[in-house]
Amino acid sequence: MDIRTIFDACHFSPEKMQKVSLFATTELFLDLYCLEPGQKQKTHTHEDSSKFYVVLEGHACFHIADETKDVGPGQTVLARAGELHGVENTSSDRLVLLVGMAPPPTHA
Amino acid sequence: MDIRTIFDACHFSPEKMQKVSLFATTELFLDLYCLEPGQKQKTHTHEDSSKFYVVLEGHACFHIADETKDVGPGQTVLARAGELHGVENTSSDRLVLLVGMAPPPTHA
Repeated sequence: MDIRTIFDACHFSPEKMQKVSLFATTELFLDLYCLEPGQKQKTHTHEDSSKFYVVLEGHACFHIADETKDVGPGQTVLARAGELHGVENTSSDRLVLLVGMAPPPTHA
Repeated sequence: MDIRTIFDACHFSPEKMQKVSLFATTELFLDLYCLEPGQKQKTHTHEDSSKFYVVLEGHACFHIADETKDVGPGQTVLARAGELHGVENTSSDRLVLLVGMAPPPTHA
């Protein structure tokens, strides 16, 4: 059975946000994003994929379409296909996000 | 911005497991499954979709393909397309699961 213990998979780097793959199939991926204070995922768009983020630990500043909002633990955010989206750790604590996307991008 | 507070969305019923939709797009859905002790989702298969479960609260007994395992908070389980899968709350406490599937089923 494919089982992952989420917090065991966390990995941070002082260089940049770390993406850790939990599951990847042809239909979806499920990742952890681990952000030290000040780190971010630049805003970008997937024309044909939906992505959701769940804040597991810390606080995140999300940019989705033309909105910017602070989001805390236990909250989930959706970026629909075609919507500009990005996230930044503007707090002084580490940020851990569970991130799913479907379908996965066709590039690496 | 599409934001949901996960535990505010929890809803239990003595009748059966409750499914609460958090997000639904043409590419994926993200649900909460809320199970009182003894409640279950019967084993079934989606031929063309992957599904993942994240245990947010409580303990779950998963049946995936030909395996059965107890899974606890902070763990995530994958059911690949074509794999028989189901889950049961065999504990004496409530169980809350975050469940994502892609692509969504074509039937209701």
